Amino acid sequence: MGYLRPVKNQIVGILGGGQLARMLALAAHPLGIPVSVLAAHATDPAPQVVGLTHIGSLEDEKDLKRFLTTVGAVTFESEFVNIDKLKRCLPTGVRVFPALDVIEAIQDRLTQKQLLNRHKIPTSPWFMVENKNDLKEARARFPAGFVLKQRRFGYDGYGTFMFKNGQGDESALLKSSHGFIAEAFVPFQSELAVSIVRSRGGGVVTLPLVTSVQRDSRCYSVCGPVKHPKFAALEKKLIAMMKAIDYVGILAFELFETKSGLLVNELAPRVHNSAHYSQNGLSCSQFEYHLRAGLGLPFPPVELIRKGFAMINLLGEGGKTELSRRPEGFLHWY
Amino acid sequence: MGYLRPVKNQIVGILGGGQLARMLALAAHPLGIPVSVLAAHATDPAPQVVGLTHIGSLEDEKDLKRFLTTVGAVTFESEFVNIDKLKRCLPTGVRVFPALDVIEAIQDRLTQKQLLNRHKIPTSPWFMVENKNDLKEARARFPAGFVLKQRRFGYDGYGTFMFKNGQGDESALLKSSHGFIAEAFVPFQSELAVSIVRSRGGGVVTLPLVTSVQRDSRCYSVCGPVKHPKFAALEKKLIAMMKAIDYVGILAFELFETKSGLLVNELAPRVHNSAHYSQNGLSCSQFEYHLRAGLGLPFPPVELIRKGFAMINLLGEGGKTELSRRPEGFLHWY
Repeated sequence: MGYLRPVKNQIVGILGGGQLARMLALAAHPLGIPVSVLAAHATDPAPQVVGLTHIGSLEDEKDLKRFLTTVGAVTFESEFVNIDKLKRCLPTGVRVFPALDVIEAIQDRLTQKQLLNRHKIPTSPWFMVENKNDLKEARARFPAGFVLKQRRFGYDGYGTFMFKNGQGDESALLKSSHGFIAEAFVPFQSELAVSIVRSRGGGVVTLPLVTSVQRDSRCYSVCGPVKHPKFAALEKKLIAMMKAIDYVGILAFELFETKSGLLVNELAPRVHNSAHYSQNGLSCSQFEYHLRAGLGLPFPPVELIRKGFAMINLLGEGGKTELSRRPEGFLHWY
Repeated sequence: MGYLRPVKNQIVGILGGGQLARMLALAAHPLGIPVSVLAAHATDPAPQVVGLTHIGSLEDEKDLKRFLTTVGAVTFESEFVNIDKLKRCLPTGVRVFPALDVIEAIQDRLTQKQLLNRHKIPTSPWFMVENKNDLKEARARFPAGFVLKQRRFGYDGYGTFMFKNGQGDESALLKSSHGFIAEAFVPFQSELAVSIVRSRGGGVVTLPLVTSVQRDSRCYSVCGPVKHPKFAALEKKLIAMMKAIDYVGILAFELFETKSGLLVNELAPRVHNSAHYSQNGLSCSQFEYHLRAGLGLPFPPVELIRKGFAMINLLGEGGKTELSRRPEGFLHWY
């Protein structure tokens, strides 16, 4: 009944205690990878499935330091971390995946777009907006309309403002100190998503391309695998970009399918709900691939368990555990 | 990021902190079933994957009481529990699966054989042995040889003594105060195993029949599914027995395939390593079935993910985590 007592340099620390941290931990356990989490509350999703939990705040340098000195590697469930604080608190020798500089570039919508465009990856037309004059310019450039998105810490519709046909609330500019970008409305036929994983050793796997349906600015459902004639060419560029920035871990891409081809809408430098299907639809989940990438373990081939899959993201509160009782499909409660 | 705070009557307590408790916990997590374990050490296999761990001894009534008052249901990773102590410590209303009386009957090889024979389930010929005279009688009855097994708390060859062609060490009788049974050697072609799950609601599922290979008195490998022309008739009797004793949970059967048909060699009233393949070979694992049985949740159909499966039980000590690096197959490290 003895067990490997986790030693510091084997422990993978996960910053955050939410559902993505929980699912990362659940993927680590069967591999015997010891994990610990830094979470706000013991009753958060992840601490319930981890023996080693540190209760604390990701914003508190004392908590961060205390946590980071106990781990050999660290990863994230959210890109919205304070990079400067993390850099100050990170002990020498602790491996971080993806790297802090990479997360910093992606967490800012401006530098994210610049990164994509530098690698000739198509995006919707965009324009940096810092003040009312810029907003006026955006109206002129994108007469059909645009989305004003705050550069950092916006997600799922939060920090996002619509300007249809030039109409929109200019006071949005006052709602964030992070600055904005304006993204032109792009007519698209459907939304697609794909996650690509790159290992510390340089190995790469691409998970199946899926279609995703958004409702109320959130991912509602995903199904796949799907094929798109232009995906192979895009995939090549995405992988080249990941190689250029030495990306380690999983990187999720949200895509628009337009008349002129595929555009990259957004990146997320982490596990993503558009790839949750991988827990039951693939023989290796996105969570396991991400951990293997960060630890330099080889990748199993991407293998569909069934011919197709669909995932629905249900949102609700309270004790509605009745769904757990359903034997059809697979429920992941969090 | 909020989560259901586990409330007492929802928590499933697992007695023990070993690998079977760990795998039960890992099956509970995706279903949102809160679990807690009573384990000797925080570094045991199960506490590493559970937020709610109580450190204590299964032999200590104070520890048992403290643990059992925090749960709504309780189950086991080993049948070798002290039934009397548990009965004294169990608060009213806590559901136990399987029931304590059932575990008590099965943990004693004498009453286990009586239970099987009462239900016309074939076993090898056996004989109760309490003293040297009984041993002499066993030699006379089983001239080809027999195995002397202590009635309780023997496992994996421990508490088991061979008497080949009448030869054997009589001092074995002094090695246990629990009494013995002598089981005649039975020439068998192969060993098979099957697990059957019966729900609180009366539903039953039978997992695939497998062949198992024992080495050094331990389960070394399992593969399946296999078919046997006489299995359907035996299965009917096994299910009838489970119904008769109102068995709730999973029950593992080790079988001998002999010239005259299938015999039941041993029972284990719990998840069992002969069904570990179910974690990757079936769409619902033995651990999930057991939890569903105890909580009265409906059973998903037994569905093979691939056409066949094989499981190898590797034993070793120390930091040989190199195996985790292998991308072929699925490793469950514990």
